[in-house]
Amino acid sequence: MSALTPLFAPRSIAVVGASRTPGKLGAALARSLDGFAAAGGRLALVNGRDATMYSSLAAAAADGPIDLTMICVPAPACPGVLAEAAAAGVGAAVICGGGFAEAGGSGVGFQDELAAVVRDSGIHLLGPNTSGFLTPPRALTASFVPGVASVEAGRVAVVAASGGVNHALAFLLSEAGHGISLAVGLGNGVDITAPDVLAHLATDPSTGAVALHVESVADGRALVEAVAALVPHKPVVALVVGRNDVGDFAASHTGALATSWRTTRAALAQAGAVLVDDERELVDAVGALSVTRAAPAADPGIGVVTAQAGPGLLLLDELRSRRARVPELTETSQGTLATLLPPLTFQRNPVDTGRPGPEFGAVLSAVSGDPRVDVVAGYALHEPDAVDLTAAVKEGCLTEVPVVLGVGGHGTDVLRCRAELISAGVAVAADPHGVAAASAAILADARGRARIASTPDPVEVTVPAAPLDEHQAKDLLDALGIATMPRRACADRAEARAALAELGGPVAVKLLDATVLHKTEIGGVKLGIRDSAELESALDTLEAAGASRFLVERMAPGGVDLVLGARRDAVFGPIVLVGLGGTTAEALADVSVRLAPLTVAEAALMPAELAGRALLEGWRGGPSLDPAALGEAVARLGGALAATPDLAEIEVNPLRLTDDGLVALDAVVLHREADDAQPHQ
Amino acid sequence: MSALTPLFAPRSIAVVGASRTPGKLGAALARSLDGFAAAGGRLALVNGRDATMYSSLAAAAADGPIDLTMICVPAPACPGVLAEAAAAGVGAAVICGGGFAEAGGSGVGFQDELAAVVRDSGIHLLGPNTSGFLTPPRALTASFVPGVASVEAGRVAVVAASGGVNHALAFLLSEAGHGISLAVGLGNGVDITAPDVLAHLATDPSTGAVALHVESVADGRALVEAVAALVPHKPVVALVVGRNDVGDFAASHTGALATSWRTTRAALAQAGAVLVDDERELVDAVGALSVTRAAPAADPGIGVVTAQAGPGLLLLDELRSRRARVPELTETSQGTLATLLPPLTFQRNPVDTGRPGPEFGAVLSAVSGDPRVDVVAGYALHEPDAVDLTAAVKEGCLTEVPVVLGVGGHGTDVLRCRAELISAGVAVAADPHGVAAASAAILADARGRARIASTPDPVEVTVPAAPLDEHQAKDLLDALGIATMPRRACADRAEARAALAELGGPVAVKLLDATVLHKTEIGGVKLGIRDSAELESALDTLEAAGASRFLVERMAPGGVDLVLGARRDAVFGPIVLVGLGGTTAEALADVSVRLAPLTVAEAALMPAELAGRALLEGWRGGPSLDPAALGEAVARLGGALAATPDLAEIEVNPLRLTDDGLVALDAVVLHREADDAQPHQ
Repeated sequence: MSALTPLFAPRSIAVVGASRTPGKLGAALARSLDGFAAAGGRLALVNGRDATMYSSLAAAAADGPIDLTMICVPAPACPGVLAEAAAAGVGAAVICGGGFAEAGGSGVGFQDELAAVVRDSGIHLLGPNTSGFLTPPRALTASFVPGVASVEAGRVAVVAASGGVNHALAFLLSEAGHGISLAVGLGNGVDITAPDVLAHLATDPSTGAVALHVESVADGRALVEAVAALVPHKPVVALVVGRNDVGDFAASHTGALATSWRTTRAALAQAGAVLVDDERELVDAVGALSVTRAAPAADPGIGVVTAQAGPGLLLLDELRSRRARVPELTETSQGTLATLLPPLTFQRNPVDTGRPGPEFGAVLSAVSGDPRVDVVAGYALHEPDAVDLTAAVKEGCLTEVPVVLGVGGHGTDVLRCRAELISAGVAVAADPHGVAAASAAILADARGRARIASTPDPVEVTVPAAPLDEHQAKDLLDALGIATMPRRACADRAEARAALAELGGPVAVKLLDATVLHKTEIGGVKLGIRDSAELESALDTLEAAGASRFLVERMAPGGVDLVLGARRDAVFGPIVLVGLGGTTAEALADVSVRLAPLTVAEAALMPAELAGRALLEGWRGGPSLDPAALGEAVARLGGALAATPDLAEIEVNPLRLTDDGLVALDAVVLHREADDAQPHQ
Repeated sequence: MSALTPLFAPRSIAVVGASRTPGKLGAALARSLDGFAAAGGRLALVNGRDATMYSSLAAAAADGPIDLTMICVPAPACPGVLAEAAAAGVGAAVICGGGFAEAGGSGVGFQDELAAVVRDSGIHLLGPNTSGFLTPPRALTASFVPGVASVEAGRVAVVAASGGVNHALAFLLSEAGHGISLAVGLGNGVDITAPDVLAHLATDPSTGAVALHVESVADGRALVEAVAALVPHKPVVALVVGRNDVGDFAASHTGALATSWRTTRAALAQAGAVLVDDERELVDAVGALSVTRAAPAADPGIGVVTAQAGPGLLLLDELRSRRARVPELTETSQGTLATLLPPLTFQRNPVDTGRPGPEFGAVLSAVSGDPRVDVVAGYALHEPDAVDLTAAVKEGCLTEVPVVLGVGGHGTDVLRCRAELISAGVAVAADPHGVAAASAAILADARGRARIASTPDPVEVTVPAAPLDEHQAKDLLDALGIATMPRRACADRAEARAALAELGGPVAVKLLDATVLHKTEIGGVKLGIRDSAELESALDTLEAAGASRFLVERMAPGGVDLVLGARRDAVFGPIVLVGLGGTTAEALADVSVRLAPLTVAEAALMPAELAGRALLEGWRGGPSLDPAALGEAVARLGGALAATPDLAEIEVNPLRLTDDGLVALDAVVLHREADDAQPHQ
């Protein structure tokens, strides 16, 4: 039982605005619900103008309690009917029709009225502007697309922002041999949003894995918490729309502004969800994860077995694109394989069986038993004369290691083979790309559960309430354990001269003023000052730029520049960002994002996500990054922001990677009041 | 008729090594060929140890000419049988078995022997180490996988490097509703390689589009010429393996080294082929192009029509990822749409019909008739109650503009609907991603045919035979019309002083010596020299680094640095490269490649392929690149290399984009003899 049981597992349903005129929404819905009635549910049709139906919801409720009301009336009438439903003791309602916030104008008001009824009465509302939902295990199709009644019952739940996508995914999953436990389109999400459905699914024994489609997010933390709570029990695979600028069209669709694609993806992954790039991979990934799941592992390895080298090469290439780790098998495993396979095939991993034969199962067994292998990805053409794949796999799956097997071929024999494999606990796909997507998802799920195991250490730091100049900002970094260069804040030229003498050249000399955010652009920074003459000249320049105080700082050694930031996202709250410095990296928006606070281990994963990560790995004899050291800095920066409600942003730009480690060369700390002065990404 | 007609359209086939023992290659092949015999072809089984068969090929040939021989004997015996076949007047042979170059050892020798027979006799050989081929329109299955006999006849030809991939693709295409005209696995390609099959397909009336799978390329120019010759008549869609390092495994597969993935892709695209990233997109793309094709266009636009906003958003997002141009429709079209659709749907492009209805066809018609639209991409759930998609599309396809329609749903009604649409000349897909892949392929094909229409202008330039110093290398650039800064080659310090006086500071002063390739690394470059004192100090430094001659050159203004190169690829010959300067771009290998010689228009397309292209488009107030100006420079550099057999490489690094245009700041020209001194990418 959950709060949404009246919605998704009703014993009785009323259709308000039911119709007998084909083409009308109320007719399509009534027809879709035939299956529910046939299965013994109570279906009450309500239409005041049709004498064969109930005249009102109250009348229908008088004959027995109504769990769910489908509201099929025009938008202006919906708030009234919803209030009637609440008054009649109905637990939940669905409004499929549009004409609300997505339409603008008076629709916004109608939506506000719905929200008010929900708030005042506590009735649960799905929609408006959705295709509804379907629960094939209950033969319940609460959708205006009657064809979805053909979707088969199974273990995958779909939680889609869009009603159309909900149906499209249900069809694709069914076509791929994966049935549906529950498929929901959220539409405008006035009341029920993704976190509510995810919480419900935690209680749903028929659901084995969840496909989550996200267009926009109202409450980022609620979504993240719901995913993190569900993932230890059931895998979640997420498809986030909006990699590109599709905002205009998206707004016309749901009335909501697009959320940052990058931040939403980062937040979902951090919560343990598996990310996919398109709806096909969503099907492969969630289908596989509804069948099998690997043990949590920080860095799982994959074993690749192929009966044909060419498709195996496609599979390996795609796995490498996804940065899956394909470890060389142990000598023991290779020894076993040598007894099974002809001498000239490739046996280190990938394992190529050459012409497939009855040994295929023993090969799978040897690879899945290798201690370096956490998931097995295989491919074979369907050749029943050469090998019985179902028998082979049953033989090969003696270990707990998940197996994904691509079965090439077509026709009913092949479909039956794939279905048998799924029944045997093996994930299947039709092509190498699907095998790669499915097995990469199993790896990501294993990593995701390993990463959510620990909680971040609290960061305790006191930040002055007043605006911070660069010296004070660096004091904050010092307090956070982020290295800076030796420096002196100087109230006048004499102090600057003393600082140069004390620190030794070369030094950087900078205008020191908390109100000046872009020192370089106004000539407020002079680098590489070695002697008194250069210092005097530099101080002249800085004074000309308006400086009355100076920062004198020892120059850092050369290296590779990073950018580190902690800021507040409008949807997700505190976030941290790591990127490479320089205009090229900036033009590429090559940045990794996480929600804060976060663990050091989580933050240490960030640099590996950068496209230009090779620059941090000893590029051309340069310094190599210790990810844990960067993780420390990021985790503390994020922790400080999260623990300090007054702060809007901390940016360290650049943070230089040197042979001696990381050192912050410039820092900006902005308070929340200074919203309009915030640089945005 | 083509040279390969005896292979792909034989009237008679002999199987040497035919067997009646299930599981044997000779038995599987004989069984696969049953269909051919049943359709009236002559099938002659040859096995000297089976009295029910011919004792020899000669005996079989004595009963009538043999067009094709399938050789099913162990590798060591194959060269002898191939020679027998040639002696018996057989036109073509297929060797499916392995144990040749891919196996190493004595297999290399067996393969060499096969090559010798081919060379001496002129017999055409497919394989060895391949699954063979199938031509469903002739009911001919010359493959050891009998299941492929179920693949349906149709308009798509598959030319696959790998026998396994050949079968996998044939199955996937058949499953997606696209039949096969001919599907060939090339295997080790001793004789017949992809260019030969492409030339044959030009003559094959049953083939409408070609799927090309490439693992390695022996003769780059032959492949490119074959593609370029075929594309004006039939679209070619290419999948190139090897984005990542899969070389070890690939070598174990075919015995060939992996060709550069990037260069192979660039060469194929330049020849007019459509590139895809995986085998699923290959199916979408070639399936669509076998049904419909757009007119050649340099910058075609796409119209997007969706019956459901959510899937439409997935489609739009994916189209934008593929950089498809989605133009706003003309006012006329928008006016027409306003009469067809409710006022609140999105109608500028994408066009969202809201709830789909009978007007769907008229909407498609309006969009396809828009002069800005060259291809229409649509999506609709299968809702026969709401709209008859086949009827709608027949109504909507009044123009010549190709339409790709995604039909969401499953079951036989949906499959029938998709088949009807294909029959009506509409490309179909099952999901938004497939629609995007298919329509992007039609756009790419239209662009590809527009780009191969013209031939490059010849570049006439004389390059000295001796090694070139930087001054001479820049003389070459001057001759090619690539701008350089004013400079003087100075034989001594006095000339250097005169040069500074003449040019005015600041100047760069460099060691001038054709034998020194890395001047900067030995301290041979001093920049920003303004006056005599700085010059003397610089000359001291350069002399200490071994300089006896100097280049004095006026400093260039600031800007964005590019790298331009022309070099020789081992497989494809002369190529040109354009990349962004700086370590980040280098670490990302952000580079665009073309074969040389090439047209200015083709070269002008290169910068748009760079990930960091935003830096060339007025990034933060900086200069904007004129692609045609860069195209001129690239085309001339490539033309010069292609026209000068002595040259190994010309590199301009950096070529700076300034407010005044492009200027070369350094240049290296290497002759071919200096192979060991060549920097490699």
